[in-house]
Order: sequence, then structure tokens, then C-alpha cells
Amino acid sequence: MYISQIATYLPNQVVTNEYFQQINGLSHEWIIERTGIEQRRKAQATENTNSMAIQAVKALSPFAINLQNIDLIVGATYTPYDTIHSLAHAVQHYLDLHHIPVLSISTACSSFVNAMEIVQGYFAMGKASQALVVVADNNTAYSNEKDTIGGHLWGDGAAALIVTKNPDNQSTMRVIDIITAGAGNVGKAPEGVYLRPNDGKFQMPHGKDVFMNACQYMTKATIDVLQRNGYQLSDLDYLVPHQANLRITKNVAQRLGLPEEKALSNIQYLGNTGCAGCVIALQENLYRFQKNDLIVVTVFGGGYSYGAMLVEYL
Amino acid sequence: MYISQIATYLPNQVVTNEYFQQINGLSHEWIIERTGIEQRRKAQATENTNSMAIQAVKALSPFAINLQNIDLIVGATYTPYDTIHSLAHAVQHYLDLHHIPVLSISTACSSFVNAMEIVQGYFAMGKASQALVVVADNNTAYSNEKDTIGGHLWGDGAAALIVTKNPDNQSTMRVIDIITAGAGNVGKAPEGVYLRPNDGKFQMPHGKDVFMNACQYMTKATIDVLQRNGYQLSDLDYLVPHQANLRITKNVAQRLGLPEEKALSNIQYLGNTGCAGCVIALQENLYRFQKNDLIVVTVFGGGYSYGAMLVEYL
Repeated sequence: MYISQIATYLPNQVVTNEYFQQINGLSHEWIIERTGIEQRRKAQATENTNSMAIQAVKALSPFAINLQNIDLIVGATYTPYDTIHSLAHAVQHYLDLHHIPVLSISTACSSFVNAMEIVQGYFAMGKASQALVVVADNNTAYSNEKDTIGGHLWGDGAAALIVTKNPDNQSTMRVIDIITAGAGNVGKAPEGVYLRPNDGKFQMPHGKDVFMNACQYMTKATIDVLQRNGYQLSDLDYLVPHQANLRITKNVAQRLGLPEEKALSNIQYLGNTGCAGCVIALQENLYRFQKNDLIVVTVFGGGYSYGAMLVEYL
Repeated sequence: MYISQIATYLPNQVVTNEYFQQINGLSHEWIIERTGIEQRRKAQATENTNSMAIQAVKALSPFAINLQNIDLIVGATYTPYDTIHSLAHAVQHYLDLHHIPVLSISTACSSFVNAMEIVQGYFAMGKASQALVVVADNNTAYSNEKDTIGGHLWGDGAAALIVTKNPDNQSTMRVIDIITAGAGNVGKAPEGVYLRPNDGKFQMPHGKDVFMNACQYMTKATIDVLQRNGYQLSDLDYLVPHQANLRITKNVAQRLGLPEEKALSNIQYLGNTGCAGCVIALQENLYRFQKNDLIVVTVFGGGYSYGAMLVEYL
């Protein structure tokens, strides 16, 4: 299958590390050293995962595709505005599309790759051929800013992608393969990081376990998806990992023997934008990619889940 | 694909209509007349969608299948305990399964049929052949019992199903076809009924719109799934609709020209158990079905979403 377009939405408000110094005493230097984050975006109180998803769809070029031909919408978020009228339904409402499958998933920060695999399934069944994938996380709405363990990590953002079964003159990337897997049975998966919406905000009592497993499983998924398609690590041109922590990204690059500059990152200025982070990074770096570049998007989500998508730039 | 086993979990605590008379003044007669509900089950404070999903999996017969052979877990809930370690991840944790796709979805009360269609997609891709589907809703945790519009509707419950790509000697039903569609653009979809976990409990400001669309779309989906497989309404042996309201079930049966007793119901004693309701009804009525009976499970979810699954009893 093929990706023809990616658009993103980022809220205007910038929150610098100085803000956290004021409210919870964490210094700019301390945050930078441990996470690489210098600033992040924060949605307005009137925004939410549904409205951000719609903003990302609005940012798609109206010239590149007739959105009325979309025959599948898959949304993803773990910071839901509404668990009933989900972000995928909000996008359907915005586009006024009828009688097409519409669903939203949650596998935390790995949800983007899971959503792409669901699209792959609909294409394989012949039930769709032109999908819209929307990913959005409104982390700050569920974050306690005073929490010195995780309050400073989170940013908000959204992305939308057009994914087609067959290539057309808009195709920019060919999806060669997708791997996803849960790791809900590993380490501190049940309580490493959690969001129990009926009982408060994000909690991350076992950040070290999350960190270690993120490094391990994003490395594993990258190697797996390359190997099973006959590629070697040396064939890889760019890695687009989940944007959780710059130290995780550097650790994964090191394990893979990849030069740091090949592991793309936006966490410095966006923070952890959840399942949207890697898609935003992919979109931001389109200008960099050359024809036939091999790119792996790899993800790890609290809970735990991991995955990798191997694409060729066209 | 084939369903080989269904197991369910219902909390012990029974809440009668008399309880609501005490706390919000709604009488037994009033509730019965408008909803058909006489009582419902309520989970303990120590229970949640994750624990109920695990209880349903525990109720699967250990003799019928080796759960260690499961190669896909799809969970569904719109009343999440944890949006990160989702109910599908909790089940993976319980079964201690490695390196298989695990994901959870939310399309409100229609989620069961969406989950089955995702499984169908994984089977079509050749990425799985033996799936575990878990559906659970802990509606009472997100319900305001004093709310005279919807507080009395909700019950809690869970179900687990083994779904296989190929038939085996445990297969009880053949899934002939699945249709799903969003209707997020229809009527009062964005605010007819909603659950915004960061901002309170269930709200249903437009119950009449939800009611009317549930009747219309479950009827439509049932007709569509029969017609596109060459069947007529007269071929239908049983209808298993989403268990939202007895008046909706009777209305759909009437629109379809189906005798009321052919439209199966458990709402009288379970209330609206969310996306688990129709699966519990299917399981409860297995004793009724005869070889080659044609059954349609049809669903409607707030948000809105609808769908239908056509099965043949083996």
C-alpha cells in the first residue's frame, strides 16, 4: 500500500521548560539532560483530540485528493475527548461521509502503526482502497503539570494520512511491510505508565522499565521488519522512532549502529506528542528523503505495545 | 471465519429498579415501560473493564482450545479502565502471550462487530489464524446513577470469543459476512450520547435521536448483510441486536417483519451492557440454535456507528 499525503496540526501555544521551573521546580538543564525536551505545544482548553484530528485533516491538500472518495477512516488516540463520538467519528462528521467503516483504536503511543496495519487488513479484504488515518493526542489534558516524574514530558499534536491500496501519481511512499505486537505481559506493562481516566491523570511509577523496554523493542522491531524483507541494517536510510525521549532515540540508534543524525527527532521542540509524534516527524522530514530511501517508523507504547513499518520513499 | 467458543462474565451484584426509585425517583413501572429493564448487574469498585475481560477469558473452556495458540487479541470497550494498558493488553498479560498483535478499539456499542471485522482483516492478510476477541463495558463506573435520563440504563458485563480462520471440530458458527459503518455525520451523532472521561460521566441529551437512528440503522444493516449474501428476510432465524432498550429491539423486529420472539434480548435482566450485550445474548441462546440456522448480530453505537454480522449455526 501507499502513503500519498501527510498533514499535521500543532497547537499554537508553546510551553518552555522555564514554565516547569516555576510550577514544579524542574530546571531547564535537568529536563534537557534527561529527556532532550526544550519546549512543547499545548492545546487550548477549547481544543481536544477530536478538534485536533479535524485540523490535521483540514491541512491535507484539497488538490491532491478528493476526500469524498475516502472509504475507510481509522483513528487513534489514548487521550480521548469522547470515547463514544471518537476522533474518527468526528472526522467522518467533518467530511460528511456515509456508509464507510469508521473506527478508533488505542494502543497508546504505538497506535499509529497498529492503525496502518488495520488499514492493510481492510485493503487485503477488498473492503477499502483509499483510507484516511488520523492520530491525535491531547496529552496535556490528562497530565498533571506539577508531577515531577512526567508532567514536563507531554505535548499535543495530530496528524492525518491518505493511504491507498494502489499507487497513483500522488504516492510518496510505498509501505513494504508492517509488524505490530503487544508486550502487555512484559516487565511493568500493567503499571509502568498508565492513564485511568476515571481516576486521575497520567502516572508513571516505573519510568525506567518503560525506558528500557522502549529501547529494546523498537530496536527489535526495526531489525525484524528489515530482516524479514531481505534487508540489512546497513540498507536503512532513516529511522523515525516514537518521540518519547531523546535518550531513547539515541539509545535505539546506538543499538542499531546507526549514526545519530539518521534517527529523526522532534521531541526537542514538541515533547512527547503520543501516537502522533512519529507521523509528525515523518512529515517534517519529507524534504530530506531521496528516491528509494528506506525508512523504518518504529513505535513503542506504554501498556506495552511495539511495532515497525518499513517504507520506501518514491 | 468461524466462532468456536463464547464465554461471558457478569458481576454478581444485582441492581433492581427499586434502587433507582430511592435515589432518583424513577419508578419500576416507568423504567419498565420505557426501556424493558427490570434489573442490571453492577461491578464491584475493585473490578473494571480489564478485570472483567480477564474473567470472561477464564470462563472459556480450557479443554476446547489451547489459549497459548492465540495469535491475535482484539479488545473493545468505550468505558476504559486504562487507555494505555488496555483490556486487550490485560488479557495478553493474563495469558502471557508474546509477539502477537494486540489492540483495543472503541466504536461505542457497535465495537463488537468492528472487532470481528478487524480479525477478518488479519485473517485475510495471513497475519493471524486464531484470534481472541474480548469485549467489556464497565458502564456503571462512568454513569451518574442520579441522572434520570440515563442513569438507570447501564449494566456491566464482558465476553470473550475464540475466532478461527479455518473450521475445526470446535467450530459452532460460521461467519458468512460482516458489514460495519460509521454514522458520525448523521443526526445528533456528536452529542446524542457522549462520554468525555476528562469531563464527567455519560450524558444523553438527545436520547430520541439515538433511539431513532438505532432503529433505522440496525434494520438497514440487517437487510444489507442478508441481501448481499443472497438471503431474504424470511431466511432469518434469529436476530441478536445491540441490547440498548427493549423498545428498540421490538421496533427493529417490527420493521423487519420478524416475530418478536426471534429478536433475542437480555436487557430485561442485564440492562445495557454496552458492546458486550449482543455477545452475551448470543452465548445465552446457543442452546436454542439449530444446525444451519441463520443469525444476524446487528449493532448500533452512540457516536454513531452501526454494523451487522451474518452467521450460520453449525
